Amino acid sequence: MTRERLYLYDTTLRDGQQTQGVQFSTTEKVQITRALDALGLDYIEGGWPGANPTDSAFFADAPETGARLTAFGMTKRSGRSAENDDVLAAVLNAGTGTICLVGKSHDFHVTDALGISLAENTKNVRASIAQIVAQGREALFDAEHFFDGYRDNPDYALSVCHAALEAGARWIVLCDTNGGALPSDIGRIVGEVIASGIPGDRLGIHTHNDTEQAVAGSLAAVEAGARQIQGTLNGLGERCGNANLTSLIPTLLLKEPYVSRFDTGITQEALAGLTKLSRMLDDILNRVPTKQAPYVGASAFAHKAGLHASAILKNPSTYEHVDPEVIGNTRIIPMSNQAGQSNLRTRLAEAGLEVAKGDPALGRILDRIKEREAEGYSYDTAQASFELLARAELGLLADLFEVKRYKVTVERRKNKYNRMISLSEAVVVVKVDGEKRLSVSESLDEDGSDRGPVNALAKALAKDLGQYSAVLEDMRLVDFKVRITQGGTEAVTRVIIDSEDGAGRRWSTVGVSANIVDASFEALLDAIRWKLIHHVEAAE
Amino acid sequence: MTRERLYLYDTTLRDGQQTQGVQFSTTEKVQITRALDALGLDYIEGGWPGANPTDSAFFADAPETGARLTAFGMTKRSGRSAENDDVLAAVLNAGTGTICLVGKSHDFHVTDALGISLAENTKNVRASIAQIVAQGREALFDAEHFFDGYRDNPDYALSVCHAALEAGARWIVLCDTNGGALPSDIGRIVGEVIASGIPGDRLGIHTHNDTEQAVAGSLAAVEAGARQIQGTLNGLGERCGNANLTSLIPTLLLKEPYVSRFDTGITQEALAGLTKLSRMLDDILNRVPTKQAPYVGASAFAHKAGLHASAILKNPSTYEHVDPEVIGNTRIIPMSNQAGQSNLRTRLAEAGLEVAKGDPALGRILDRIKEREAEGYSYDTAQASFELLARAELGLLADLFEVKRYKVTVERRKNKYNRMISLSEAVVVVKVDGEKRLSVSESLDEDGSDRGPVNALAKALAKDLGQYSAVLEDMRLVDFKVRITQGGTEAVTRVIIDSEDGAGRRWSTVGVSANIVDASFEALLDAIRWKLIHHVEAAE
Repeated sequence: MTRERLYLYDTTLRDGQQTQGVQFSTTEKVQITRALDALGLDYIEGGWPGANPTDSAFFADAPETGARLTAFGMTKRSGRSAENDDVLAAVLNAGTGTICLVGKSHDFHVTDALGISLAENTKNVRASIAQIVAQGREALFDAEHFFDGYRDNPDYALSVCHAALEAGARWIVLCDTNGGALPSDIGRIVGEVIASGIPGDRLGIHTHNDTEQAVAGSLAAVEAGARQIQGTLNGLGERCGNANLTSLIPTLLLKEPYVSRFDTGITQEALAGLTKLSRMLDDILNRVPTKQAPYVGASAFAHKAGLHASAILKNPSTYEHVDPEVIGNTRIIPMSNQAGQSNLRTRLAEAGLEVAKGDPALGRILDRIKEREAEGYSYDTAQASFELLARAELGLLADLFEVKRYKVTVERRKNKYNRMISLSEAVVVVKVDGEKRLSVSESLDEDGSDRGPVNALAKALAKDLGQYSAVLEDMRLVDFKVRITQGGTEAVTRVIIDSEDGAGRRWSTVGVSANIVDASFEALLDAIRWKLIHHVEAAE
Repeated sequence: MTRERLYLYDTTLRDGQQTQGVQFSTTEKVQITRALDALGLDYIEGGWPGANPTDSAFFADAPETGARLTAFGMTKRSGRSAENDDVLAAVLNAGTGTICLVGKSHDFHVTDALGISLAENTKNVRASIAQIVAQGREALFDAEHFFDGYRDNPDYALSVCHAALEAGARWIVLCDTNGGALPSDIGRIVGEVIASGIPGDRLGIHTHNDTEQAVAGSLAAVEAGARQIQGTLNGLGERCGNANLTSLIPTLLLKEPYVSRFDTGITQEALAGLTKLSRMLDDILNRVPTKQAPYVGASAFAHKAGLHASAILKNPSTYEHVDPEVIGNTRIIPMSNQAGQSNLRTRLAEAGLEVAKGDPALGRILDRIKEREAEGYSYDTAQASFELLARAELGLLADLFEVKRYKVTVERRKNKYNRMISLSEAVVVVKVDGEKRLSVSESLDEDGSDRGPVNALAKALAKDLGQYSAVLEDMRLVDFKVRITQGGTEAVTRVIIDSEDGAGRRWSTVGVSANIVDASFEALLDAIRWKLIHHVEAAE
């Protein structure tokens, strides 16, 4: 079989920005563009110049990319020439080598939303594309509502696409704008479009996830002959999101028939950075990464079922469709009530702790976990706390510092401007390097707002840990989960803290107490201990 | 075309429980079973009796259902008869009318994971299914790793399925256990299985979402002839989750070709409760509902793009693939609150507040809610806080007391017996009946254990509210949920408190702050205010 080129078009910065609550700054757009370019995408759609100031600013000072940086806009309006449409002019003025214009291909939208004749719309599409091509630039035509339009009036939908092709568009992109088209329909219709005379290597596909099938719809189009996929990182986008490139890319690079049939701009080496890239985007958006995300999620290679976990120990391919390392992700065998000794040994090995089969410490660790789980602890996700518990039983928990006591105050009162404000203040007393140290910290962010008692405690604790304080500088709390659960006979609070450091490591710790601040403090202490122990061991 | 029956099999309580961090209590299992049954599912898999105490307890006292309640287990092990396998016996002893057994169908797993001969495995499958059927019960066979097994050794994979069928299994369920099979392969292979002599109305499909195509894979199997779909609510499940029934059900009930071809047990009326059911499950799990979830997500019908929003006002079908009301969801159009006003009046009426159509307060309340939601508040469940907000705008919020300031301390230190203990102490200053009152309280339960700062604040606040203190005596906090959420541009803590009183009333309130104690205090204040206002109104 001849290998064919499959092109990947990213619209994270344009359609992805239609996600509720998402608004990138220009700096963030530049950062994301660089990361997408490093991944090896063919096209990066930067936004709609003229439609909002951030997008205009981005194009005014766009980064150099290997990918074709693309400006998005819409086909010219009626009653003016392509040269005299100010909306189109703003798009052209962004000066990109490639321009993508969306236009109507569904008759109902032409007559009802635009209120013009079908012929007039086709003329507008043709003139707009011709204008781009006349300037020696590459043109894409996004055929909006193509699949709905094809269902209602296939002749008209096709005629608009042919008009754009004849006017010189490099790509005709078939859009399932409302996200309701099913993969089987998409596959059949793409085949019919090719049969009508538009070659597959001039066809792109743009789907949305409203039936949870955007990825499948994109692949159905490729199987039918389309050779460009439009999508977004982490499936961002209007409503339920666009086709998720973070899922599509590994499938295209790792699975048959795609591996043998297609070349993309993405190398296996770049693929290994995908998990990190996905988390980076969440980080920019200040979102908690989706644990269950295919390929890149923290749970994507987590084997909780007892039967699965024991088979994975013999051979990972028993319960894994691909090797997690290929996309920079990691395998997790969570601890739970059902876990046995062999399961435990693997978990320990993953934490760098080699324990021989039959070591009596294994039984002690399992007992301790069981005991703690009965008190309300959970080591399912809190792997760093699990590691510390195991290290304690194995005699591998260096005694780096000791917390003698702490005190934290939360106060709400009027400030000098007679406004109600809240304040937190923490005092922590630790013994480190044989010396007792007393630190105090309040909890104010850059804006002078109170971030609460846990933050104050974290700051006070990190402030004076002697030689270790510097190590903790790049550490931050990224998530904080609280649950009321049963601890023995009474309700207790379980706090899980996710931490991250400058090296991109992420670890989870757990604390349990009837007192929420005390439970948080315990999880915090574990987070710091884990970071310090790994620092000390790396230094040895 | 003749209509055919398509069966839906829910495994939220079994495979769904393999989600990292998910562990249902018996009470929660009963609650979810009732909700699934009301939705109209055909089968509800309750768990694996004998594998863990919660599942055994659930079956020991299982609720009555219209759906076939199903116990899950595995086929008998080698070296003992079906009658003498204690693992299988525990499953049979649960006494359900239907039993689903998982068994190997991939040769590699038989020889490598089980370490037995292929013939021996087939014999185990046959004997186990026969044992169920001999007891006059319905049997399902989950053919584990079927698609991987069929790729490597189609004859063996098929022969195991035929053995189960011959032994009397009602359903042969083809499982893509590792989640790596693509929809096009699933469709082709299901067709080949049917051609081998297993009728489609005896075939089920069980997929996982490891390539984000579990829904598409299930539909491909149905299109090829399979007539049972196994899945979970909200796509819970091992690793990336199972096929998401919350997405599949609306697609099957609302879209062609499914609507015209298939009957399921789900009515259009039940479908209108789907959004509520999905959120209820998240509530039980203390998870933030996924905004972008197809059909049921808060963003699923949110139209952010300016062009889309203005077209939606003319005709919703321009940018919606289905009507949100059909699944109990709502449209969100940033620029208009037309849709909101009638919803709002209904909700106010539920709180006993009759407001006339067109009352300008309605617009003010909607604006205020929007403003607060942008800050991180959520009034979905916090009905009592919603009522207080509305009362404030309607001039119906009596000013019973005012909190001037508070201060709460949490301390961990050694006590006189040299044991580490924690302590909380709260001081609250209120103005009530024109008088300033200062109360202090610590937080110790009957055993002398610290119950934390929120408890201390609650006690101090209720202690001296003049004439109102007596009213608060029968009030207690029954649940406390904490979530990190987005408030404007920063992460904030949202606390939801459920309270209860002697009359059996239960009400929920919300507080938001970057400071967890302050957020709790706000929710607490609302809870007390709500109780007092209803007391005062009842007395009038």
